Amino acid sequence: MNRPLKILTGTANRAIVEEAAQYLGVPISNMLVTKFSDGEVRVQINESIRGADVYVFQSLSSPANQHIMELLLIIDALKRSSAGRITAVIPYFAYARQDRQDKPRTPVSARLLADLITVAGANRVVTIDLHSPQIQGFFDIPVDHLSALPVLYEYIKKNLILENPVVVSPDAGGVERARLLANRLGCGIAIIYKRRPEPNKAEVLDVVGEIDGKEAIIIDDLIDTAGTMVAAANMLINRGAKRVLACATHGVLSGPAVERLTNSPIEQVIITNTIPIGDKLFDKLRIVSVAPLLGEAIKRIHEEESVSSLFI
Amino acid sequence: MNRPLKILTGTANRAIVEEAAQYLGVPISNMLVTKFSDGEVRVQINESIRGADVYVFQSLSSPANQHIMELLLIIDALKRSSAGRITAVIPYFAYARQDRQDKPRTPVSARLLADLITVAGANRVVTIDLHSPQIQGFFDIPVDHLSALPVLYEYIKKNLILENPVVVSPDAGGVERARLLANRLGCGIAIIYKRRPEPNKAEVLDVVGEIDGKEAIIIDDLIDTAGTMVAAANMLINRGAKRVLACATHGVLSGPAVERLTNSPIEQVIITNTIPIGDKLFDKLRIVSVAPLLGEAIKRIHEEESVSSLFI
Amino acid sequence: MNRPLKILTGTANRAIVEEAAQYLGVPISNMLVTKFSDGEVRVQINESIRGADVYVFQSLSSPANQHIMELLLIIDALKRSSAGRITAVIPYFAYARQDRQDKPRTPVSARLLADLITVAGANRVVTIDLHSPQIQGFFDIPVDHLSALPVLYEYIKKNLILENPVVVSPDAGGVERARLLANRLGCGIAIIYKRRPEPNKAEVLDVVGEIDGKEAIIIDDLIDTAGTMVAAANMLINRGAKRVLACATHGVLSGPAVERLTNSPIEQVIITNTIPIGDKLFDKLRIVSVAPLLGEAIKRIHEEESVSSLFI
Amino acid sequence: MNRPLKILTGTANRAIVEEAAQYLGVPISNMLVTKFSDGEVRVQINESIRGADVYVFQSLSSPANQHIMELLLIIDALKRSSAGRITAVIPYFAYARQDRQDKPRTPVSARLLADLITVAGANRVVTIDLHSPQIQGFFDIPVDHLSALPVLYEYIKKNLILENPVVVSPDAGGVERARLLANRLGCGIAIIYKRRPEPNKAEVLDVVGEIDGKEAIIIDDLIDTAGTMVAAANMLINRGAKRVLACATHGVLSGPAVERLTNSPIEQVIITNTIPIGDKLFDKLRIVSVAPLLGEAIKRIHEEESVSSLFI
Amino acid sequence: MNRPLKILTGTANRAIVEEAAQYLGVPISNMLVTKFSDGEVRVQINESIRGADVYVFQSLSSPANQHIMELLLIIDALKRSSAGRITAVIPYFAYARQDRQDKPRTPVSARLLADLITVAGANRVVTIDLHSPQIQGFFDIPVDHLSALPVLYEYIKKNLILENPVVVSPDAGGVERARLLANRLGCGIAIIYKRRPEPNKAEVLDVVGEIDGKEAIIIDDLIDTAGTMVAAANMLINRGAKRVLACATHGVLSGPAVERLTNSPIEQVIITNTIPIGDKLFDKLRIVSVAPLLGEAIKRIHEEESVSSLFI
Amino acid sequence: MNRPLKILTGTANRAIVEEAAQYLGVPISNMLVTKFSDGEVRVQINESIRGADVYVFQSLSSPANQHIMELLLIIDALKRSSAGRITAVIPYFAYARQDRQDKPRTPVSARLLADLITVAGANRVVTIDLHSPQIQGFFDIPVDHLSALPVLYEYIKKNLILENPVVVSPDAGGVERARLLANRLGCGIAIIYKRRPEPNKAEVLDVVGEIDGKEAIIIDDLIDTAGTMVAAANMLINRGAKRVLACATHGVLSGPAVERLTNSPIEQVIITNTIPIGDKLFDKLRIVSVAPLLGEAIKRIHEEESVSSLFI
Repeated sequence: MNRPLKILTGTANRAIVEEAAQYLGVPISNMLVTKFSDGEVRVQINESIRGADVYVFQSLSSPANQHIMELLLIIDALKRSSAGRITAVIPYFAYARQDRQDKPRTPVSARLLADLITVAGANRVVTIDLHSPQIQGFFDIPVDHLSALPVLYEYIKKNLILENPVVVSPDAGGVERARLLANRLGCGIAIIYKRRPEPNKAEVLDVVGEIDGKEAIIIDDLIDTAGTMVAAANMLINRGAKRVLACATHGVLSGPAVERLTNSPIEQVIITNTIPIGDKLFDKLRIVSVAPLLGEAIKRIHEEESVSSLFI
Repeated sequence: MNRPLKILTGTANRAIVEEAAQYLGVPISNMLVTKFSDGEVRVQINESIRGADVYVFQSLSSPANQHIMELLLIIDALKRSSAGRITAVIPYFAYARQDRQDKPRTPVSARLLADLITVAGANRVVTIDLHSPQIQGFFDIPVDHLSALPVLYEYIKKNLILENPVVVSPDAGGVERARLLANRLGCGIAIIYKRRPEPNKAEVLDVVGEIDGKEAIIIDDLIDTAGTMVAAANMLINRGAKRVLACATHGVLSGPAVERLTNSPIEQVIITNTIPIGDKLFDKLRIVSVAPLLGEAIKRIHEEESVSSLFI
Repeated sequence: MNRPLKILTGTANRAIVEEAAQYLGVPISNMLVTKFSDGEVRVQINESIRGADVYVFQSLSSPANQHIMELLLIIDALKRSSAGRITAVIPYFAYARQDRQDKPRTPVSARLLADLITVAGANRVVTIDLHSPQIQGFFDIPVDHLSALPVLYEYIKKNLILENPVVVSPDAGGVERARLLANRLGCGIAIIYKRRPEPNKAEVLDVVGEIDGKEAIIIDDLIDTAGTMVAAANMLINRGAKRVLACATHGVLSGPAVERLTNSPIEQVIITNTIPIGDKLFDKLRIVSVAPLLGEAIKRIHEEESVSSLFI
Repeated sequence: MNRPLKILTGTANRAIVEEAAQYLGVPISNMLVTKFSDGEVRVQINESIRGADVYVFQSLSSPANQHIMELLLIIDALKRSSAGRITAVIPYFAYARQDRQDKPRTPVSARLLADLITVAGANRVVTIDLHSPQIQGFFDIPVDHLSALPVLYEYIKKNLILENPVVVSPDAGGVERARLLANRLGCGIAIIYKRRPEPNKAEVLDVVGEIDGKEAIIIDDLIDTAGTMVAAANMLINRGAKRVLACATHGVLSGPAVERLTNSPIEQVIITNTIPIGDKLFDKLRIVSVAPLLGEAIKRIHEEESVSSLFI
Repeated sequence: MNRPLKILTGTANRAIVEEAAQYLGVPISNMLVTKFSDGEVRVQINESIRGADVYVFQSLSSPANQHIMELLLIIDALKRSSAGRITAVIPYFAYARQDRQDKPRTPVSARLLADLITVAGANRVVTIDLHSPQIQGFFDIPVDHLSALPVLYEYIKKNLILENPVVVSPDAGGVERARLLANRLGCGIAIIYKRRPEPNKAEVLDVVGEIDGKEAIIIDDLIDTAGTMVAAANMLINRGAKRVLACATHGVLSGPAVERLTNSPIEQVIITNTIPIGDKLFDKLRIVSVAPLLGEAIKRIHEEESVSSLFI
Repeated sequence: MNRPLKILTGTANRAIVEEAAQYLGVPISNMLVTKFSDGEVRVQINESIRGADVYVFQSLSSPANQHIMELLLIIDALKRSSAGRITAVIPYFAYARQDRQDKPRTPVSARLLADLITVAGANRVVTIDLHSPQIQGFFDIPVDHLSALPVLYEYIKKNLILENPVVVSPDAGGVERARLLANRLGCGIAIIYKRRPEPNKAEVLDVVGEIDGKEAIIIDDLIDTAGTMVAAANMLINRGAKRVLACATHGVLSGPAVERLTNSPIEQVIITNTIPIGDKLFDKLRIVSVAPLLGEAIKRIHEEESVSSLFI
């Protein structure tokens, strides 16, 4: 593509952008993103982006609403300032768990967010491991949906000695993700789910699949409060698991997450850097970087080469 | 609502419309839907629908493309003829399995279909058991997403004597559906999935969960060629299942489905009438009607009462 | 244009695409377009089209609904896979006869079809001899509307010895088309139309214009069931025509067309290859190719040269 | 419909609105439509139209651009002031002759106009005798396309004694209109068209059909400069026509029209009042009113009764 | 309007909603608006709003991004749950000061916000004293733009004894607002503005108009950090003002505002309750309620009566 | 940008286009813009613009409606003829004073106009000194909003000897514009406004600020009938102004403007050539050219360089 490549970033996760920019050998463009005294977002781009092929990074991590509005305002400023093509690079896509009306009269928040990004003026999106792959279809613009699974798998393979592993989905909705990792490892799966033992009784956690004597790797798209993850780990220990490891692409780690994980039987928590970890570091945590993945995707998109090998 | 209620129907499934119309006590409006000699669809509505609250039924069953174009042309005719409100009632929604880019450079067909229905002029949609609930979010207009699970459950409870059942998901993506039925029955679940026993070896079917000595009820949203269903049944028998039953909302039953099911160890195949069965009747088949469900939903939508109790 | 030129094709008319691709010296890109067992269309593009200037061919001939859905799904796949520009090349545009509400409460199918193609993501359209030129205005995107009249005229001039020809419009709506051909040939016109001889009597076919002793060339945009064409031919013979020839751009030839034409007094039926003739070949049929016309148009569009000399 | 019916009007043709309002028994609402000193249009609605079923009349006659902007601004004011439903009643639709790209690099002005009316906020359109019926398909909103042919026919039947009439289309594109009137009168048709007598010679007017000794009624959708009409009349006299009458729905009558018609062999010029005649009255002119037709259409639309009997 | 009136509210300003609801005699509908642990907004409407005429209140006060996302998600939930008509009641509209690109490459944030509200599904907006009246034109949907000026004026008239007042605009952009209040009070105006005393020197505050010996009432649309307001007050005292009063519709009062105002020569700060004051109460503060204004506007909109007397 | 630069122009102001084209060293492309006999606009572009970077000039001066329709039709023709990028260059933007609903039930004409230009197909806009800067936000496409203030200031500085100037805003809404010029000149401002001396008395003109003995420069965005300007001048003389000068970007000069200005105490009237002055030249008039400003902006936009230094 003839247009010059420009990298911009919101405030959510500057570290990953710097690493991706370094991968690309491109400086981060000069843009001011601050808050006015009353909390409204202020955006000012300090160099010409007229005609450029712009990649604007923003992880929609907490505070999500703040980061969303930053992203939308940056896109609006880019559009009105005649950027040639605007790609929103969103390592962590917020509101993804609200991807359907799971109860009556609730929003489909992920679809709303897709519409907001589009109406602001984005021409395309790059993101990683959406909660459900159907969210890609919430967009009318091209979405390059990258997978961190190979990165997580490489970490496991290089750093962990596993004799008899089993990959565990912590709920009924994540079995496909567990299956994909298990098939890379050449092992079986197990599923933890909410079971109602008899009609009209309360649901309790149960597990289906062999656990006894195995090394259980729980995989999910994200770890938020870690409630699900830790309950799963406890159940696996009860069922005889020899070791329990947890891995996920997105380390949301809100509320009691760090404390819970620290106090849990989980041996290691492996996540990527889609969300900055800030002061939430703890001993068990291992972080692998997806910045090269993002950098490579941008390079190929800019040069109009195939990106598909970076999907799962 | 002050507007008169009108029922129209495409050619896909007149039987279910007649049953729903009878439930509502409303005649089916006079509309001609035929084909020209070259196969193009011809639509002519033969009574005034100006200002009416119109419910146009069309199951998007095979031949799906024909039925889709019928639906779109009817909606266009309704829009241009000043219908007051147009609700597309789609008992079976086509192309739902293509709800994400599962491979590079494929369409998200279900999203495209949602856009086609919207651009033609539909104001809302009523449908049953979408392949994935996220498809609701492919629409920008309200979608009342009804569930046939209670109807299927009622059939099972009234007609089958089960001593030690287990509900089986035939693949990794359908576990939540199996869980919902299992919890109604107060029993456990099992999952069949494609497993790669060792890296670089071919995937083989495997099952996770207890089967031996149990009555296995396989549940899926639809039965198409029945390949998955029958392979699952065979595996369950091999693992010691005492009986195997299959149930699904949508009986697509294409290609070798009837033969496969007939020759399989499956005892009963329980489906609903979202798709007309035509000449594909066979001994094991049991069909339960969702027409009252649709009729009741339309009644409430027309009278602007809550429909949410008809969702799952 | 810097973008690489790519040719893709649906399944409707591969022969014309191969001929056009040969004209352009460009291979047809690798894409799978098949049907699932239940008849749903499956599309998979097997090479990168990222950033390319893509021309996707699809004649919307019978089965039109199948071919329309193929085209829409291919366009959706192209859009989501970041094609640089998507041009739908539609040698035969379906539903074109339903270009107005000729009766109350009917669709304007051709406008609907234009909207479907646009919402799927096409950036422009190339087509030939629309039933009415106003259909171009149904699109909001650029439409290059090519004319096959010069090609048909060349055939007539080279292959037929005409002493005293008259060009005949087979109905009241096609007189302008007849006039254009007549003016190339330097001869007069006649019009066949449905006449009501007295108020409240049934309409009968009549002809206005001199026929006796002449060579009548009936021209229409398409021949479908050939009912109009053959009735016209019979009437022309009755009025003393010496010879009757039929020509049209699009050979739909549905239902009894071949039999009717074979048994009619028409001497030759001259059409183009916008629609594949398949097994409907018959002695009187002459087919002239518009593939060079399409190839030349694509060449100019790709190189951003003027196309207007290829319009009428 | 529960909403109150309101009639508003632009400045183009107040007389027809008053007549239609009287038919409906509804007063014309108080609205100021004037020009600022620099010629910009000023609109102010002086009574509440909140929630009303509003019919805003505007003939898009000369000065068309002025009348178009008036209409668009009135619709914008209605939309922003919360009108319940906005119907644009456009007895004469401008720019209708530019309904296709008849030459390269020209606009499709009629489609543009349809888009302007829609983007301003109109919910539906009522109009009479569009230049081509396909223009209805330029709109995405419902268009009630009324026909003045019955009104013109009634005038002819009551006021003219015709012994051996023929209905004449003044060009190749208007044959269908001539046919419809001829079939009401139970007579034949003739067509005047531009003929090229030999290749590379200039086109000359010619006529096809029997004229000699007949009473020729030329029918067109509109009479603009009357050049076509008068040339046709002269040719018909030359071919032996006993009398020549001209009729059309829309009396544009621009430039030399009145003088030409006055000096022509045309005996009577019959038009409707879609366009105010102003000071262009002349002896031969007969004007029939379509105000009751518009009034009846509005009455039915407001009461949500069928309008289709007012189409042709 | 036949539809039932329903009041819903986001979390921004429940007090004003309760007061408006009481005015209307309508209960606030049951809706849950909370935050998940990671800060994402969760919305669940707990009663049927199908077909209702819904007024959803949300002041877009700090934290604005949080409140904006709440509003958008509530609107999405309402749209998908088939509300009959959705009116966003926004007493304080955020980002209104960014209503133009005041510097290169900045967003037009207020327009973006208007687009977000529209794409989420709002059908209309009610708001009070926008920073600039042109923001109304940023919306494509009807906006009822109410004025708090009469309420502020009534307070001043009833509670303050003014002998020789002057109304002061604190900057060059707010003169019209000052003029409107001055004309109600029958007094003159003065303007404070940034003046560059000589070319290439820094700008300093200056005042134009008579101040000496007068009671100065500074009026603005909002008081944010109070920097402008307090600097203006100090200057007015320096120029001999006898008393200084400040009034504004929206009490944003961020950062050092309360401290600054407390320590300033301003005698009273008069605002309305569009933004909840929370713990920022201080002695000089006077709050007048606009809840009856909102309640009355909603009553009239619901009953489709004219609202215009509530505009300025 | 690779695309060739093309300049086209409507009929409103050919002189400024020729000057800008000369600045750019680019010929004006061959396009026919005329009127049909009935006043409808006829557009035909006589050279290929396929793929070009097109700048179409049109000042929306009187007759505004005519000029608006010309612009829209040219844009439509460009879009349908495959122009690569369409920039509307609008030196004078019409209907800009109607940028808000200043009274109930009026249009927001400037927003409507922005929508019309966008729906016709413009990709971007270049304009000068909009009545209010918020109008930029009425567009969803990029608007390069140039300022003529530097050009006007240069004229004043070079041609006038000012000893003790004051810049005067002729109404409450234009104070910011006066401030910007005053700060360039290093002098103070004064404001003329409509004052109600006592409640319930009529408004009269008043001035705030020092005038006595000064040289008053009244600045406005445009001079239309000159009523405001001349009333302001008279008041300034009454208050002791030594000299009065008037300047404005747009010389609308409608109705009695020339006579009023000639007979007024205004010494010079300084405007730019955004609107052709035609035969309205008078002695006091001074015209400075903004053609180089437009030429330079186009050059930078075409070459994708920063334009921001041409904004204020």
